[in-house]
Amino acid sequence: MRELPELSVHHADPSTFPPGIAYMDGQYLPIGEAKISVLDYGFLHSDATYDVAHVWKGAFFRLEDHLERFFSGLEKLHMTIPYDRAQVAEILHNCVALSGLQNSYVEFICTRGMSPTFSRDPREAINRFIAFAIPFGSVANSEQMEQGLHAAVTPIVRIPPESVDPTVKNYHWLDLVSGLYVAYDQGADTAILVDTSGNISEGPGFNIFCVTDGKISTPKLGVLKGITRQTVFDICREMQIECVAEDVPPTKLKRADEVFVTSTAGGVMPVTKIDAAPVGSGSPGSITRRITESYWRMHEDTQNRMVVEYPAMA
Amino acid sequence: MRELPELSVHHADPSTFPPGIAYMDGQYLPIGEAKISVLDYGFLHSDATYDVAHVWKGAFFRLEDHLERFFSGLEKLHMTIPYDRAQVAEILHNCVALSGLQNSYVEFICTRGMSPTFSRDPREAINRFIAFAIPFGSVANSEQMEQGLHAAVTPIVRIPPESVDPTVKNYHWLDLVSGLYVAYDQGADTAILVDTSGNISEGPGFNIFCVTDGKISTPKLGVLKGITRQTVFDICREMQIECVAEDVPPTKLKRADEVFVTSTAGGVMPVTKIDAAPVGSGSPGSITRRITESYWRMHEDTQNRMVVEYPAMA
Repeated sequence: MRELPELSVHHADPSTFPPGIAYMDGQYLPIGEAKISVLDYGFLHSDATYDVAHVWKGAFFRLEDHLERFFSGLEKLHMTIPYDRAQVAEILHNCVALSGLQNSYVEFICTRGMSPTFSRDPREAINRFIAFAIPFGSVANSEQMEQGLHAAVTPIVRIPPESVDPTVKNYHWLDLVSGLYVAYDQGADTAILVDTSGNISEGPGFNIFCVTDGKISTPKLGVLKGITRQTVFDICREMQIECVAEDVPPTKLKRADEVFVTSTAGGVMPVTKIDAAPVGSGSPGSITRRITESYWRMHEDTQNRMVVEYPAMA
Repeated sequence: MRELPELSVHHADPSTFPPGIAYMDGQYLPIGEAKISVLDYGFLHSDATYDVAHVWKGAFFRLEDHLERFFSGLEKLHMTIPYDRAQVAEILHNCVALSGLQNSYVEFICTRGMSPTFSRDPREAINRFIAFAIPFGSVANSEQMEQGLHAAVTPIVRIPPESVDPTVKNYHWLDLVSGLYVAYDQGADTAILVDTSGNISEGPGFNIFCVTDGKISTPKLGVLKGITRQTVFDICREMQIECVAEDVPPTKLKRADEVFVTSTAGGVMPVTKIDAAPVGSGSPGSITRRITESYWRMHEDTQNRMVVEYPAMA
């Protein structure tokens, strides 16, 4: 008879975590306490939707737009949570205030959850809401923000809308992760995926824009309707720069004068090299720079801001 | 100044869990203790692979095949774990033995994990291995096993191989879950998805077979290479029934004499109604029945079994 190992009562987690505060089950918790069961279908079936807002210099930026998209995603996935938009906003606020973070990446999630019987019927699961605030992160580091990202256009096809609705922000990223490994093999920083027609789609966590003869294009179909993407449309309207959502073939991207990517995680970020060749002059372009400046200036505008009320220092 | 809520030290989880034992971080734990951080990319990017073996009447069935597929998936996803096959088999054995379950659903997982800095570069993450044993579950309940499942062929396209390699068993299920809701709306029990060419693909957790004039067909491309699917090929060879992996148009499926689905979760399960119409006679067919019987008989064959050594009752 072989000897069986001891059974432990509680899990001792050896992981280290970034600073941050999470909310789940009515409790505000250190980020390291925010865990989901391995039986949650949000994990086992990636059956979840989420959104990421950010706090910059002590204020949320365009939070309403993120809430709008999140609640729309819930409806499309037949999920319900016991909070309305104002209550979710309050929870997010509290996570950030308790964390003390002036610049923060604020994610809120609804998973399908689980049923106590581990039923395979998603209608029997109890949906679960989780939120957390951690330090602000960026797709591009400070050197890449300065000099521009090096992206590789990979042959990997972004999961098409016929399979998963890209307007429901979701965690289906294995195609994007595979793309990253292809890009790393080529010495690039990040990956750009194509759509089923071979046109440019999106990258890991960002939308893509190119500037040709002063006119801006970004892929129209099969991509996340990014809030930063929408902000770029708004900025272009303001600046009277033409900006159109349309098919973008890889050749158009590679021959563009400027290329940039957008994400809540980093804002507007220049791309100065695609595959082996420089984009335009090989340095971040003037239109990219003007849009980036305008993007951060918009953060001062009170109509886009929800100010965080931090606790007084003890 | 608004009042901020209290911060809790530890998460108090209101969930109830099925019986079962899990393994993670060198510890054997009650299943309710097996949780992953919301920062684990296995959750946030569904960046994970897994496999599910089953234990029937106190023995694993074809465990080697599941281990083979799991380790192949790890390699394709650039993941590493500090265990070899024999060690994983030992861990799975211990989970089942400690659980006392004679019939068990045994899942083992590798997630990308996280890096302490929450880096977005998957190469910086520490991959994480988790395993658990819970009671055996089935795609079909006992009534459905008897009378056959009612399936709906949905227009939803299974995530194509150009996006995610289906031979790497993965958690990208939102297309399958959407399919289930479409099926439920039509009064069906489960969903069948199509591939990008409009041919039959697979359903939520199962492969699909149809029998026409004594010959069996199952989709060839873009599907999981199921171990139960392979077992059906083996049984058919033994029984001298022709069984071919090929394109299966929906019309062929609907006009078939018999249809069945296969999964580790349930084995071989009859489908007797597709959309509004009965399949063949509307009752489970004789070939389906013979294959099902043979499938369970194979569980007695010592070459397919790894016996679990349960602890002596105290």
